Amino acid sequence: MPAAPISLDVALEQVGAEIDRGFDSLLAIPPDARAPLFEAMRYAAIGGGKRLRALLVVAGCNLFHVARERAIRVALAVECVHVYSLIHDDLPSMDDDDLRRGKPTLHRAFDESTAILAGDSLHALAFQVLAEEETHEDPFVRSDLILELARAAGPAGMAGGQMMDLKAAEMRLDLASVTRLQQLKTGALIGWCLEAAAIMGRVPPEGRRSLRGYARDVGLAFQIADDLLDHEGHEEKAGKRVGKDREAGKETFVSLLGPDRARLQAELLVDQAVEHLAGYGAEAGLLRAIARFAVERDH
Amino acid sequence: MPAAPISLDVALEQVGAEIDRGFDSLLAIPPDARAPLFEAMRYAAIGGGKRLRALLVVAGCNLFHVARERAIRVALAVECVHVYSLIHDDLPSMDDDDLRRGKPTLHRAFDESTAILAGDSLHALAFQVLAEEETHEDPFVRSDLILELARAAGPAGMAGGQMMDLKAAEMRLDLASVTRLQQLKTGALIGWCLEAAAIMGRVPPEGRRSLRGYARDVGLAFQIADDLLDHEGHEEKAGKRVGKDREAGKETFVSLLGPDRARLQAELLVDQAVEHLAGYGAEAGLLRAIARFAVERDH
Repeated sequence: MPAAPISLDVALEQVGAEIDRGFDSLLAIPPDARAPLFEAMRYAAIGGGKRLRALLVVAGCNLFHVARERAIRVALAVECVHVYSLIHDDLPSMDDDDLRRGKPTLHRAFDESTAILAGDSLHALAFQVLAEEETHEDPFVRSDLILELARAAGPAGMAGGQMMDLKAAEMRLDLASVTRLQQLKTGALIGWCLEAAAIMGRVPPEGRRSLRGYARDVGLAFQIADDLLDHEGHEEKAGKRVGKDREAGKETFVSLLGPDRARLQAELLVDQAVEHLAGYGAEAGLLRAIARFAVERDH
Repeated sequence: MPAAPISLDVALEQVGAEIDRGFDSLLAIPPDARAPLFEAMRYAAIGGGKRLRALLVVAGCNLFHVARERAIRVALAVECVHVYSLIHDDLPSMDDDDLRRGKPTLHRAFDESTAILAGDSLHALAFQVLAEEETHEDPFVRSDLILELARAAGPAGMAGGQMMDLKAAEMRLDLASVTRLQQLKTGALIGWCLEAAAIMGRVPPEGRRSLRGYARDVGLAFQIADDLLDHEGHEEKAGKRVGKDREAGKETFVSLLGPDRARLQAELLVDQAVEHLAGYGAEAGLLRAIARFAVERDH
């Protein structure tokens, strides 16, 4: 039976606590010279972030009545990749950020080499968590989750999008190019969250079209919302440096469309995302709430 | 039927060419802004290195008559991880090396951000290659290869060893600590090469003891040989900067044992490694030759 509907705030809080517990047990500090590496991973991974990707996994798994503890393992894997990507993106040679989730970035709090290794370690741990039998007893499911995550995180996905983003300051991107960049940089991993839910639910590839459409629209809506947040410049609420795209001369949805049309576009995408869920009933309530959160959250 | 015995030189050359072809097809340059990322990966991955890890996989797979093209896919995965680790280890905030495999390191030839992303991309590609059906039709085999690789590459293996190595200059390590450091930093991935061969050969875990012993001894012997190379200081033959451990005040097998006893220890380890193969016949010829190569190669 589907659980009674809960508010988005409560759902985010619950998933956040479960992910924190997952990291706490995954990252137990060893009694040797690797301790600083684990301390660094804990600093970056525990107690921060919206856990949007984790919630997308859990909300997607709700559709198919996947056991909660399994859904949380899959969610932990995507948060491993997300946190690793934030650590590496913040490095001096990349975006050179000092602030993340309201506290000093990892290379500021520790040092650069530890930050690189902490990112690399979380990257490997994501695949380890998925490959363990506790995630699913069927190795085909585990292998499929891993194949799709490797594609979403690698050069055909997130890492490729970050490369495009680094080159974006030197180029004048048009709307199609910014869309493509963001579909790789952030969209691929968000897409994986729903793909993973479908894999855990044993939905065959041909039955995943609506979830893929939902993920694509929600991913872009969140990116536009992030661009608006950056444009409006509330550093305190964002928990990170804002206005940096403009400084760097990078085109964003807001620079190309203007803030009003960008906001309208995000709302349109959210409506579209919700329409993709038409085939699902009350069990998709959380996914609908997440979509609306993209444009309704307190900037 | 086992293939006729071939010399180690020929075997290394053959595997090297196959790995280069594998990278060439894996890293086809896309017609978009990600091109520099793929060019960087190709620069680091193609046409360099001894391909020792790839050869260990292939030689191990020979024991169990694994199809050559499958063995090469598994070998490609371990070379992806090895190359990624070299790229990241060479970074300015890590070992800060300018020379690798006789040419400028990746962050020198390209830039630091591209080097970080190229390493991250190769890391993801390793898991992608293993998760693809072409590697093995049984998803349990694929999932098992991935689980063991994630453990070997992550904080309980290679990344953890690199962390220990970064801290080594500040500590006075004893022989046990240097051994432990190297077993994580280089031994875990070398161990995976033989573990992967056993997994591909469907050898149950209890039947892998001798191969694990072989891998442990060969891994340490190669590390001692590397320390000797570094100590003797032939930069040209090493294809990388030498003498840096001494400069950094790091203890090595050579600094702790002296060069003569270190060489003797390596020879002892090679004998032990070969003894672990006593249960295998002529089909283990290549593994025996690889072990002897550790102490016989032209320093």
